[in-house]
Amino acid sequence: MLSDYPQPLVMVDTALFTILNEGLCLILAQRQEPPESGHLALPGGFVHVQEDADTEDAARRVIRAKIGFDAPYLEQLYTFSGANRDSRGWSISVAYYALVPASLLDQAQVAETFSVKNLPKLPFDHDQIVAKAIERLQSKSTYSSLPAFLLPEVFTLNDLHVIYQQTQDVRLDKASFRHKIMEQDIIEPIPGYFRTGAHRPAQLYRLTHRVLTSFERKI
Amino acid sequence: MLSDYPQPLVMVDTALFTILNEGLCLILAQRQEPPESGHLALPGGFVHVQEDADTEDAARRVIRAKIGFDAPYLEQLYTFSGANRDSRGWSISVAYYALVPASLLDQAQVAETFSVKNLPKLPFDHDQIVAKAIERLQSKSTYSSLPAFLLPEVFTLNDLHVIYQQTQDVRLDKASFRHKIMEQDIIEPIPGYFRTGAHRPAQLYRLTHRVLTSFERKI
Repeated sequence: MLSDYPQPLVMVDTALFTILNEGLCLILAQRQEPPESGHLALPGGFVHVQEDADTEDAARRVIRAKIGFDAPYLEQLYTFSGANRDSRGWSISVAYYALVPASLLDQAQVAETFSVKNLPKLPFDHDQIVAKAIERLQSKSTYSSLPAFLLPEVFTLNDLHVIYQQTQDVRLDKASFRHKIMEQDIIEPIPGYFRTGAHRPAQLYRLTHRVLTSFERKI
Repeated sequence: MLSDYPQPLVMVDTALFTILNEGLCLILAQRQEPPESGHLALPGGFVHVQEDADTEDAARRVIRAKIGFDAPYLEQLYTFSGANRDSRGWSISVAYYALVPASLLDQAQVAETFSVKNLPKLPFDHDQIVAKAIERLQSKSTYSSLPAFLLPEVFTLNDLHVIYQQTQDVRLDKASFRHKIMEQDIIEPIPGYFRTGAHRPAQLYRLTHRVLTSFERKI
Protein backbone atom coordinates (compact mmCIF):
# COMPACT_ATOMS: atom_id res chain seq x y z
CA MET A 1 0.00 0.00 0.00
CA LEU A 2 1.50 3.26 -1.15
CA SER A 3 -0.56 5.66 0.98
CA ASP A 4 -1.80 5.93 4.55
CA TYR A 5 -5.23 6.93 3.28
CA PRO A 6 -7.72 4.49 1.76
CA GLN A 7 -7.24 4.61 -2.00
CA PRO A 8 -9.87 3.78 -4.62
CA LEU A 9 -9.72 0.48 -6.48
CA VAL A 10 -8.25 1.10 -9.92
CA MET A 11 -9.30 -0.91 -12.93
CA VAL A 12 -9.47 -0.68 -16.70
CA ASP A 13 -12.40 -1.62 -18.94
CA THR A 14 -12.31 -2.02 -22.70
CA ALA A 15 -15.00 -1.49 -25.33
CA LEU A 16 -13.84 -3.48 -28.36
CA PHE A 17 -15.77 -2.99 -31.59
CA THR A 18 -15.72 -4.85 -34.85
CA ILE A 19 -17.80 -4.86 -38.04
CA LEU A 20 -19.59 -8.07 -38.94
CA ASN A 21 -22.46 -8.72 -41.35
CA GLU A 22 -24.92 -7.24 -38.87
CA GLY A 23 -22.97 -3.97 -38.67
CA LEU A 24 -21.13 -2.49 -35.70
CA CYS A 25 -20.62 -5.15 -33.00
CA LEU A 26 -19.23 -5.13 -29.47
CA ILE A 27 -17.04 -7.89 -28.05
CA LEU A 28 -18.09 -9.12 -24.61
CA ALA A 29 -16.52 -11.71 -22.31
CA GLN A 30 -18.11 -13.91 -19.66
CA ARG A 31 -16.91 -12.93 -16.19
CA GLN A 32 -15.02 -15.79 -14.51
CA GLU A 33 -15.01 -14.35 -10.99
CA PRO A 34 -17.40 -12.54 -8.64
CA PRO A 35 -18.96 -10.06 -8.59
CA GLU A 36 -21.29 -10.72 -11.54
CA SER A 37 -19.60 -14.07 -12.21
CA GLY A 38 -21.01 -15.76 -15.32
CA HIS A 39 -22.39 -12.52 -16.75
CA LEU A 40 -21.31 -10.99 -20.03
CA ALA A 41 -19.39 -7.77 -19.48
CA LEU A 42 -16.74 -5.55 -21.00
CA PRO A 43 -13.32 -7.19 -20.74
CA GLY A 44 -11.64 -5.50 -17.78
CA GLY A 45 -9.50 -5.96 -14.71
CA PHE A 46 -7.47 -4.33 -11.99
CA VAL A 47 -4.31 -2.39 -12.68
CA HIS A 48 -1.27 -4.41 -11.55
CA VAL A 49 1.25 -1.89 -10.30
CA GLN A 50 4.09 -4.44 -10.41
CA GLU A 51 3.73 -5.25 -14.09
CA ASP A 52 1.78 -2.49 -15.91
CA ALA A 53 3.68 0.58 -17.14
CA ASP A 54 0.46 2.63 -17.21
CA THR A 55 -3.29 2.12 -17.59
CA GLU A 56 -3.06 1.63 -21.37
CA ASP A 57 -0.54 -1.13 -20.75
CA ALA A 58 -3.00 -2.65 -18.25
CA ALA A 59 -5.77 -2.54 -20.87
CA ARG A 60 -3.54 -4.32 -23.41
CA ARG A 61 -2.68 -7.01 -20.85
CA VAL A 62 -6.38 -7.52 -20.04
CA ILE A 63 -7.31 -7.84 -23.73
CA ARG A 64 -4.54 -10.37 -24.32
CA ALA A 65 -5.55 -12.40 -21.25
CA LYS A 66 -9.33 -12.29 -21.65
CA ILE A 67 -9.77 -12.15 -25.43
CA GLY A 68 -6.52 -13.55 -26.75
CA PHE A 69 -5.21 -10.95 -29.21
CA ASP A 70 -3.22 -7.74 -29.27
CA ALA A 71 -5.51 -4.78 -29.83
CA PRO A 72 -4.22 -2.91 -32.89
CA TYR A 73 -5.60 0.51 -31.98
CA LEU A 74 -6.47 1.54 -28.45
CA GLU A 75 -7.62 4.94 -27.35
CA GLN A 76 -8.51 6.26 -23.92
CA LEU A 77 -12.22 6.95 -23.74
CA TYR A 78 -13.06 8.38 -20.32
CA THR A 79 -12.54 7.63 -16.64
CA PHE A 80 -15.56 6.49 -14.65
CA SER A 81 -15.51 6.70 -10.87
CA GLY A 82 -17.47 6.72 -7.64
CA ALA A 83 -18.56 4.84 -4.57
CA ASN A 84 -21.42 2.95 -6.20
CA ARG A 85 -20.23 1.76 -9.60
CA ASP A 86 -18.70 -1.47 -8.21
CA SER A 87 -19.86 -3.41 -5.15
CA ARG A 88 -16.25 -3.95 -4.04
CA GLY A 89 -15.87 -0.29 -3.08
CA TRP A 90 -15.01 3.22 -4.30
CA SER A 91 -13.49 2.59 -7.69
CA ILE A 92 -11.99 4.17 -10.78
CA SER A 93 -12.24 2.59 -14.20
CA VAL A 94 -10.09 4.05 -16.94
CA ALA A 95 -12.00 2.98 -20.04
CA TYR A 96 -10.43 2.36 -23.46
CA TYR A 97 -12.00 1.61 -26.81
CA ALA A 98 -10.66 -0.04 -29.91
CA LEU A 99 -11.66 -1.03 -33.41
CA VAL A 100 -10.74 -4.61 -34.15
CA PRO A 101 -10.56 -6.08 -37.68
CA ALA A 102 -12.92 -9.07 -37.92
CA SER A 103 -9.97 -11.25 -39.02
CA LEU A 104 -8.44 -10.92 -35.51
CA LEU A 105 -11.55 -12.48 -33.98
CA ASP A 106 -10.48 -15.91 -35.22
CA GLN A 107 -7.83 -15.81 -32.49
CA ALA A 108 -10.35 -14.78 -29.86
CA GLN A 109 -10.86 -17.27 -27.04
CA VAL A 110 -14.03 -16.80 -25.03
CA ALA A 111 -15.32 -13.61 -26.60
CA GLU A 112 -18.83 -13.20 -27.97
CA THR A 113 -19.93 -10.49 -30.38
CA PHE A 114 -23.23 -8.60 -30.20
CA SER A 115 -24.70 -6.03 -32.56
CA VAL A 116 -24.66 -2.67 -30.77
CA LYS A 117 -28.38 -2.51 -31.58
CA ASN A 118 -29.07 -5.64 -29.60
CA LEU A 119 -26.81 -5.70 -26.56
CA PRO A 120 -27.60 -7.65 -23.39
CA LYS A 121 -27.97 -5.66 -20.15
CA LEU A 122 -24.44 -5.23 -18.79
CA PRO A 123 -23.30 -5.20 -15.15
CA PHE A 124 -21.65 -2.29 -13.24
CA ASP A 125 -21.80 0.96 -15.25
CA HIS A 126 -20.81 -0.86 -18.44
CA ASP A 127 -23.96 0.30 -20.28
CA GLN A 128 -22.82 3.85 -19.69
CA ILE A 129 -19.26 3.08 -20.85
CA VAL A 130 -20.58 1.45 -24.04
CA ALA A 131 -22.90 4.40 -24.79
CA LYS A 132 -20.01 6.83 -24.47
CA ALA A 133 -17.73 4.64 -26.59
CA ILE A 134 -20.28 4.42 -29.42
CA GLU A 135 -20.82 8.17 -29.31
CA ARG A 136 -17.06 8.82 -29.46
CA LEU A 137 -16.52 6.24 -32.20
CA GLN A 138 -19.23 7.67 -34.39
CA SER A 139 -18.29 11.31 -33.92
CA LYS A 140 -14.63 10.50 -34.51
CA SER A 141 -15.36 8.44 -37.61
CA THR A 142 -16.74 11.43 -39.44
CA TYR A 143 -13.38 13.15 -39.68
CA SER A 144 -10.71 10.52 -39.22
CA SER A 145 -9.18 7.42 -40.69
CA LEU A 146 -10.33 5.36 -37.70
CA PRO A 147 -12.77 3.05 -39.55
CA ALA A 148 -10.14 2.25 -42.18
CA PHE A 149 -8.25 0.24 -39.58
CA LEU A 150 -11.07 -2.30 -39.65
CA LEU A 151 -10.12 -3.27 -43.20
CA PRO A 152 -7.34 -5.51 -44.46
CA GLU A 153 -4.22 -3.71 -45.72
CA VAL A 154 -5.54 -3.51 -49.26
CA PHE A 155 -9.13 -2.57 -50.07
CA THR A 156 -11.42 -0.96 -52.61
CA LEU A 157 -13.20 2.37 -52.25
CA ASN A 158 -16.41 0.38 -52.04
CA ASP A 159 -15.10 -1.64 -49.06
CA LEU A 160 -14.22 1.62 -47.33
CA HIS A 161 -17.61 3.15 -48.08
CA VAL A 162 -19.35 0.14 -46.52
CA ILE A 163 -17.16 0.25 -43.38
CA TYR A 164 -17.77 3.98 -42.82
CA GLN A 165 -21.50 3.50 -43.26
CA GLN A 166 -21.56 0.60 -40.81
CA THR A 167 -19.41 2.33 -38.20
CA GLN A 168 -21.56 5.44 -38.24
CA ASP A 169 -24.82 3.63 -38.92
CA VAL A 170 -25.79 6.10 -41.64
CA ARG A 171 -26.09 6.12 -45.43
CA LEU A 172 -23.32 8.17 -47.04
CA ASP A 173 -23.62 9.43 -50.59
CA LYS A 174 -20.98 7.52 -52.56
CA ALA A 175 -19.71 10.38 -54.70
CA SER A 176 -19.32 12.87 -51.87
CA PHE A 177 -17.82 10.19 -49.61
CA ARG A 178 -15.23 9.45 -52.29
CA HIS A 179 -14.50 13.14 -52.67
CA LYS A 180 -14.13 13.72 -48.92
CA ILE A 181 -11.87 10.73 -48.40
CA MET A 182 -9.55 11.66 -51.25
CA GLU A 183 -9.38 15.23 -49.98
CA GLN A 184 -8.24 14.07 -46.53
CA ASP A 185 -5.14 12.27 -47.78
CA ILE A 186 -6.08 9.13 -45.85
CA ILE A 187 -5.76 6.57 -48.65
CA GLU A 188 -3.87 6.22 -51.92
CA PRO A 189 -4.33 3.96 -54.96
CA ILE A 190 -1.76 1.20 -55.44
CA PRO A 191 -0.60 1.66 -59.04
CA GLY A 192 -1.52 -1.34 -61.21
CA TYR A 193 -3.47 -3.25 -58.52
CA PHE A 194 -7.12 -4.03 -59.12
CA ARG A 195 -9.68 -6.44 -57.73
CA THR A 196 -11.37 -8.36 -60.51
CA GLY A 197 -14.59 -10.34 -60.33
CA ALA A 198 -18.13 -10.20 -61.63
CA HIS A 199 -17.91 -6.42 -62.07
CA ARG A 200 -15.38 -4.26 -63.83
CA PRO A 201 -11.95 -4.23 -62.14
CA ALA A 202 -11.85 -2.03 -59.00
CA GLN A 203 -8.77 -0.01 -58.10
CA LEU A 204 -7.13 -1.20 -54.87
CA TYR A 205 -6.09 1.32 -52.20
CA ARG A 206 -3.95 1.37 -49.08
CA LEU A 207 -3.64 3.81 -46.16
CA THR A 208 -1.19 6.64 -46.82
CA HIS A 209 2.20 6.77 -45.17
CA ARG A 210 1.00 9.74 -43.10
CA VAL A 211 -1.90 7.75 -41.62
CA LEU A 212 0.16 4.63 -41.04
CA THR A 213 2.87 6.49 -39.15
CA SER A 214 0.35 8.25 -36.93
CA PHE A 215 -1.17 4.79 -36.42
CA GLU A 216 2.17 3.32 -35.46
CA ARG A 217 2.64 6.06 -32.91
CA LYS A 218 -0.52 4.72 -31.26
CA ILE A 219 0.72 1.15 -30.79
CA MET B 1 -7.77 -0.40 2.11
CA LEU B 2 -10.34 -1.87 -0.22
CA SER B 3 -8.17 -4.48 -1.88
CA ASP B 4 -5.55 -7.06 -0.90
CA TYR B 5 -3.39 -5.97 -3.82
CA PRO B 6 -1.36 -2.77 -3.85
CA GLN B 7 -3.48 -0.09 -5.52
CA PRO B 8 -2.19 2.97 -7.34
CA LEU B 9 -2.41 6.39 -5.69
CA VAL B 10 -5.36 8.25 -7.16
CA MET B 11 -5.33 12.01 -7.55
CA VAL B 12 -6.92 14.74 -9.62
CA ASP B 13 -5.18 17.67 -11.30
CA THR B 14 -6.86 20.72 -12.77
CA ALA B 15 -5.82 22.99 -15.63
CA LEU B 16 -7.75 26.24 -15.07
CA PHE B 17 -7.64 28.81 -17.87
CA THR B 18 -8.75 32.39 -18.02
CA ILE B 19 -8.38 35.26 -20.48
CA LEU B 20 -6.51 38.36 -19.30
CA ASN B 21 -4.97 41.22 -21.26
CA GLU B 22 -2.06 39.00 -22.27
CA GLY B 23 -4.42 36.38 -23.77
CA LEU B 24 -4.98 32.81 -22.63
CA CYS B 25 -3.61 32.31 -19.09
CA LEU B 26 -3.21 29.32 -16.77
CA ILE B 27 -3.85 29.47 -13.03
CA LEU B 28 -1.12 27.88 -10.91
CA ALA B 29 -0.85 27.40 -7.15
CA GLN B 30 2.20 27.10 -4.95
CA ARG B 31 2.50 23.63 -3.44
CA GLN B 32 2.28 23.68 0.34
CA GLU B 33 3.52 20.14 0.97
CA PRO B 34 6.22 17.80 -0.33
CA PRO B 35 7.03 16.59 -2.87
CA GLU B 36 7.87 19.75 -4.85
CA SER B 37 6.88 21.94 -1.88
CA GLY B 38 7.08 25.65 -2.74
CA HIS B 39 6.91 25.04 -6.50
CA LEU B 40 4.14 26.32 -8.73
CA ALA B 41 2.00 23.48 -10.05
CA LEU B 42 -1.47 22.63 -11.27
CA PRO B 43 -3.93 22.67 -8.36
CA GLY B 44 -4.44 19.01 -7.47
CA GLY B 45 -4.82 16.50 -4.69
CA PHE B 46 -5.72 12.97 -3.70
CA VAL B 47 -9.20 11.59 -4.08
CA HIS B 48 -10.87 11.29 -0.66
CA VAL B 49 -13.06 8.22 -0.84
CA GLN B 50 -14.98 9.23 2.30
CA GLU B 51 -16.14 12.59 0.97
CA ASP B 52 -15.91 12.69 -2.85
CA ALA B 53 -18.79 11.31 -4.90
CA ASP B 54 -16.51 10.82 -7.91
CA THR B 55 -13.32 12.27 -9.39
CA GLU B 56 -15.09 15.36 -10.75
CA ASP B 57 -16.36 16.04 -7.26
CA ALA B 58 -12.79 15.65 -5.99
CA ALA B 59 -11.58 18.18 -8.57
CA ARG B 60 -14.24 20.68 -7.46
CA ARG B 61 -13.23 20.24 -3.82
CA VAL B 62 -9.55 20.76 -4.68
CA ILE B 63 -10.31 23.96 -6.63
CA ARG B 64 -12.42 25.34 -3.78
CA ALA B 65 -9.71 24.50 -1.23
CA LYS B 66 -6.65 25.59 -3.19
CA ILE B 67 -7.99 28.46 -5.31
CA GLY B 68 -11.08 29.57 -3.44
CA PHE B 69 -13.89 29.52 -5.98
CA ASP B 70 -16.38 27.14 -7.55
CA ALA B 71 -15.33 26.24 -11.09
CA PRO B 72 -18.24 27.06 -13.38
CA TYR B 73 -17.39 24.60 -16.15
CA LEU B 74 -15.29 21.52 -15.61
CA GLU B 75 -14.57 18.86 -18.14
CA GLN B 76 -12.57 15.68 -17.90
CA LEU B 77 -9.42 15.95 -19.99
CA TYR B 78 -7.49 12.69 -19.79
CA THR B 79 -6.13 10.25 -17.23
CA PHE B 80 -2.37 10.16 -16.77
CA SER B 81 -0.78 7.16 -15.07
CA GLY B 82 2.34 5.18 -14.41
CA ALA B 83 5.10 4.26 -11.99
CA ASN B 84 7.26 7.31 -12.63
CA ARG B 85 4.99 10.33 -12.85
CA ASP B 86 5.02 10.94 -9.06
CA SER B 87 7.85 10.09 -6.62
CA ARG B 88 5.34 8.75 -4.09
CA GLY B 89 4.61 5.69 -6.21
CA TRP B 90 2.53 4.25 -9.06
CA SER B 91 -0.17 6.85 -9.54
CA ILE B 92 -3.19 7.86 -11.54
CA SER B 93 -4.15 11.46 -12.11
CA VAL B 94 -7.57 12.14 -13.57
CA ALA B 95 -7.07 15.57 -15.12
CA TYR B 96 -9.82 18.16 -15.59
CA TYR B 97 -9.79 21.50 -17.34
CA ALA B 98 -11.97 24.55 -16.98
CA LEU B 99 -12.45 28.01 -18.38
CA VAL B 100 -12.77 30.57 -15.62
CA PRO B 101 -14.19 34.09 -16.14
CA ALA B 102 -11.60 36.67 -15.06
CA SER B 103 -14.16 38.15 -12.62
CA LEU B 104 -13.96 34.96 -10.50
CA LEU B 105 -10.23 35.49 -9.98
CA ASP B 106 -10.92 38.30 -7.51
CA GLN B 107 -12.01 35.59 -5.09
CA ALA B 108 -8.88 33.53 -5.71
CA GLN B 109 -6.60 33.06 -2.74
CA VAL B 110 -3.07 32.01 -3.53
CA ALA B 111 -3.36 31.51 -7.24
CA GLU B 112 -1.05 33.11 -9.80
CA THR B 113 -1.80 33.49 -13.49
CA PHE B 114 0.70 32.95 -16.31
CA SER B 115 0.33 33.46 -20.03
CA VAL B 116 0.35 30.04 -21.68
CA LYS B 117 3.15 31.42 -23.86
CA ASN B 118 5.34 32.01 -20.84
CA LEU B 119 4.78 29.22 -18.33
CA PRO B 120 7.32 28.22 -15.69
CA LYS B 121 8.64 24.64 -15.77
CA LEU B 122 6.10 22.55 -13.87
CA PRO B 123 6.76 19.52 -11.64
CA PHE B 124 5.53 15.90 -12.17
CA ASP B 125 4.01 15.45 -15.66
CA HIS B 126 2.14 18.74 -15.37
CA ASP B 127 3.77 20.14 -18.54
CA GLN B 128 2.25 17.24 -20.44
CA ILE B 129 -1.17 17.78 -18.82
CA VAL B 130 -1.08 21.49 -19.73
CA ALA B 131 -0.08 20.77 -23.34
CA LYS B 132 -2.98 18.35 -23.73
CA ALA B 133 -5.41 20.79 -22.07
CA ILE B 134 -4.44 23.63 -24.43
CA GLU B 135 -4.75 21.34 -27.43
CA ARG B 136 -8.23 20.20 -26.31
CA LEU B 137 -9.35 23.71 -25.46
CA GLN B 138 -8.31 25.09 -28.81
CA SER B 139 -9.71 22.26 -30.90
CA LYS B 140 -12.96 22.35 -28.94
CA SER B 141 -13.28 26.11 -29.23
CA THR B 142 -13.55 25.92 -32.98
CA TYR B 143 -16.92 24.20 -32.88
CA SER B 144 -18.44 24.84 -29.48
CA SER B 145 -19.76 27.49 -27.14
CA LEU B 146 -16.94 26.82 -24.67
CA PRO B 147 -15.18 30.24 -24.91
CA ALA B 148 -18.50 32.04 -24.39
CA PHE B 149 -18.47 30.88 -20.77
CA LEU B 150 -15.55 33.22 -20.17
CA LEU B 151 -17.83 36.22 -20.73
CA PRO B 152 -20.35 37.83 -18.40
CA GLU B 153 -23.99 36.86 -18.99
CA VAL B 154 -24.53 39.69 -21.44
CA PHE B 155 -22.01 40.61 -24.14
CA THR B 156 -21.55 42.06 -27.60
CA LEU B 157 -20.55 40.18 -30.72
CA ASN B 158 -17.26 42.05 -30.55
CA ASP B 159 -16.59 40.75 -26.99
CA LEU B 160 -17.24 37.24 -28.23
CA HIS B 161 -15.00 37.68 -31.25
CA VAL B 162 -12.13 38.82 -29.01
CA ILE B 163 -12.58 35.88 -26.60
CA TYR B 164 -12.60 33.30 -29.41
CA GLN B 165 -9.47 34.84 -30.93
CA GLN B 166 -7.67 34.83 -27.58
CA THR B 167 -8.70 31.29 -26.68
CA GLN B 168 -7.53 29.90 -29.99
CA ASP B 169 -4.66 32.33 -30.41
CA VAL B 170 -5.60 33.05 -34.02
CA ARG B 171 -7.10 35.94 -35.97
CA LEU B 172 -10.67 35.18 -37.08
CA ASP B 173 -12.33 37.12 -39.87
CA LYS B 174 -15.09 39.11 -38.20
CA ALA B 175 -17.79 38.62 -40.82
CA SER B 176 -17.33 34.87 -41.16
CA PHE B 177 -17.02 34.49 -37.37
CA ARG B 178 -20.33 36.30 -36.96
CA HIS B 179 -21.91 34.10 -39.62
CA LYS B 180 -20.61 30.86 -38.08
CA ILE B 181 -21.68 31.78 -34.56
CA MET B 182 -25.21 32.75 -35.61
CA GLU B 183 -25.49 29.54 -37.63
CA GLN B 184 -24.65 27.41 -34.59
CA ASP B 185 -27.51 28.67 -32.44
CA ILE B 186 -25.14 29.46 -29.56
CA ILE B 187 -26.17 33.04 -28.84
CA GLU B 188 -29.25 35.22 -29.33
CA PRO B 189 -29.79 38.99 -29.29
CA ILE B 190 -31.64 40.44 -26.28
CA PRO B 191 -34.39 42.54 -27.86
CA GLY B 192 -33.97 46.22 -27.05
CA TYR B 193 -30.65 45.92 -25.17
CA PHE B 194 -27.60 47.75 -26.50
CA ARG B 195 -24.25 48.86 -25.15
CA THR B 196 -23.65 52.54 -25.81
CA GLY B 197 -20.36 54.40 -25.65
CA ALA B 198 -17.92 56.12 -27.97
CA HIS B 199 -19.15 54.05 -30.92
CA ARG B 200 -22.59 53.41 -32.28
CA PRO B 201 -24.80 51.30 -29.96
CA ALA B 202 -23.90 47.59 -30.06
CA GLN B 203 -26.56 44.88 -29.77
CA LEU B 204 -26.23 42.82 -26.58
CA TYR B 205 -26.43 39.03 -26.74
CA ARG B 206 -26.83 36.15 -24.32
CA LEU B 207 -26.27 32.38 -24.61
CA THR B 208 -29.26 30.49 -25.99
CA HIS B 209 -31.45 28.35 -23.78
CA ARG B 210 -30.10 25.26 -25.56
CA VAL B 211 -26.49 26.12 -24.64
CA LEU B 212 -27.34 27.11 -21.07
CA THR B 213 -29.18 23.87 -20.37
CA SER B 214 -26.38 21.75 -21.78
CA PHE B 215 -24.09 23.88 -19.61
CA GLU B 216 -26.17 23.20 -16.54
CA ARG B 217 -26.00 19.51 -17.21
CA LYS B 218 -22.25 19.90 -16.85
CA ILE B 219 -22.33 21.47 -13.38
